[in-house]
Amino acid sequence: MHVDFQGWVSAHQKRFEDVLGQLLPRADVAPQRLHEAMRYVVLGGGKRVRPLLAFAAGELAGADVARVNVAAASIEFIHVYSLVHDDMPCMDDDVLRRGKPTCHVQYDDATALLVGDGLQTLAFQLLSEHRLNDDASRQLEMIKLLAIASGSRGMAGGQAIDLDSVGKALTLPELEFMHIHKTGALIRAAILLGAHCGSITSTQLEKLDHFGKLIGLAFQVVDDVLDCEADTATLGKTAGKDMDNDKPTYVSLLGIQGAREMASRLHREALDTLAEFGDTAQRLRELADFIVLRKF
Amino acid sequence: MHVDFQGWVSAHQKRFEDVLGQLLPRADVAPQRLHEAMRYVVLGGGKRVRPLLAFAAGELAGADVARVNVAAASIEFIHVYSLVHDDMPCMDDDVLRRGKPTCHVQYDDATALLVGDGLQTLAFQLLSEHRLNDDASRQLEMIKLLAIASGSRGMAGGQAIDLDSVGKALTLPELEFMHIHKTGALIRAAILLGAHCGSITSTQLEKLDHFGKLIGLAFQVVDDVLDCEADTATLGKTAGKDMDNDKPTYVSLLGIQGAREMASRLHREALDTLAEFGDTAQRLRELADFIVLRKF
Repeated sequence: MHVDFQGWVSAHQKRFEDVLGQLLPRADVAPQRLHEAMRYVVLGGGKRVRPLLAFAAGELAGADVARVNVAAASIEFIHVYSLVHDDMPCMDDDVLRRGKPTCHVQYDDATALLVGDGLQTLAFQLLSEHRLNDDASRQLEMIKLLAIASGSRGMAGGQAIDLDSVGKALTLPELEFMHIHKTGALIRAAILLGAHCGSITSTQLEKLDHFGKLIGLAFQVVDDVLDCEADTATLGKTAGKDMDNDKPTYVSLLGIQGAREMASRLHREALDTLAEFGDTAQRLRELADFIVLRKF
Repeated sequence: MHVDFQGWVSAHQKRFEDVLGQLLPRADVAPQRLHEAMRYVVLGGGKRVRPLLAFAAGELAGADVARVNVAAASIEFIHVYSLVHDDMPCMDDDVLRRGKPTCHVQYDDATALLVGDGLQTLAFQLLSEHRLNDDASRQLEMIKLLAIASGSRGMAGGQAIDLDSVGKALTLPELEFMHIHKTGALIRAAILLGAHCGSITSTQLEKLDHFGKLIGLAFQVVDDVLDCEADTATLGKTAGKDMDNDKPTYVSLLGIQGAREMASRLHREALDTLAEFGDTAQRLRELADFIVLRKF
């Protein structure tokens, strides 16, 4: 029976929420307050875009979904750790995330710091303690891939560039460089880790990586457009924040219309990259559509 | 030719400084400021106690020193990340570390946050991208070991318990529980990772783990004694800080003399644990002596 995209998304989101709950430390295990806070920031919110990309890439590679669960959770833990740290007063100082008070507001700054630290560690623990590929060497490659994508030359590095860019007039290539690191690297890693759980050739991995690069950029461009247009209630986080902070965005550089056109172009190019995969890439194509056409 | 302990320590410290410099991102690679700050906090300071323990355990297991270098660097990066985050205003709010301004003082809070994040990631990158054992499955075990030792049920968890304990009257078992996590877990991991780079039986690993547990506790007891006695110049960090903060310590629970006796007892028990290893454990014994008898 064919499941439509929305059904596929809902089923995975629902199922994955349980997976996350099981992979997180229980709230009654010491230190309880830290573990409660880790569960607070991870559970009950988020579109789970990166995990969905991992599941779609896993389907393409014929991967066992139990293995992709672990890879997707590790990606989500890295993503949430970065949100928790980014929201802290010394960074973006944001009070609302996924429609709830941010971690340092709900708990305190020190707990938010440790929650982020602990979630990052947990991501690497998961990738090393579960069997994700019959070949242990391949699994080491997966860990390396996530580390590079999230470290100082990936996501954390992108965040550093972002901080340095406040109040500066970036060029389009500079803005792109920042986002390829800040959000793009982890989106690419999500797709590649999902695929690594199954069978995939290096040529196919290259194509998926290119797809991930394009769709990661499109994701950010659309984010900037939505941040400019939407109100806080729809977005679940404080709207207009980047503009207020005088941060460069695709909208500030290209205007709303220019940014929308850029997103459409990236969308088309991303779909072209998947041409050879046929039906196995259906969910990845649908996710690309969703990322570009979403309203929240 | 027999090298005495001080010669062995100096040679490893000097050599290891170069290893760290090579494994850190270069300061001229983007994002430059972040990479410069990562190098600032890691290089040019520290007794490198954990790396020395890894080298000593590596010698015991007949490990290739090039492999132990990488394992020791990953441990040191985790250790330094925890110092950088612990020193931040929302945690211990300390301005001096290893005789230099702390990271958030020298740079800023946001950079300190990202420096810690990036160093943690780099630790896991190193353990996955270098070959540390001919058996890739064993290497996955090593990564898991470091993740558990440093995560929410290890070092970061100990830090959370420490935060919760400020102003509280802990019992001796509670204080011990905190330190077994906060400092003990990483010291044990250092010894085990060093040994895993060579050939070692699981029975021997258990003995080394027990040695690490005892010596990790002794390390903390001696730290408390020194913190109470020493002046800031000798210590390279702000002295008397824990007393000022009304944090429970071994000295506040047992008195100076009682704490000294506890350190001696742990020291003896630790040496007993190494009995079967004979000469191969010489450096580990000397390190145990150093940890307990040090004056700074």
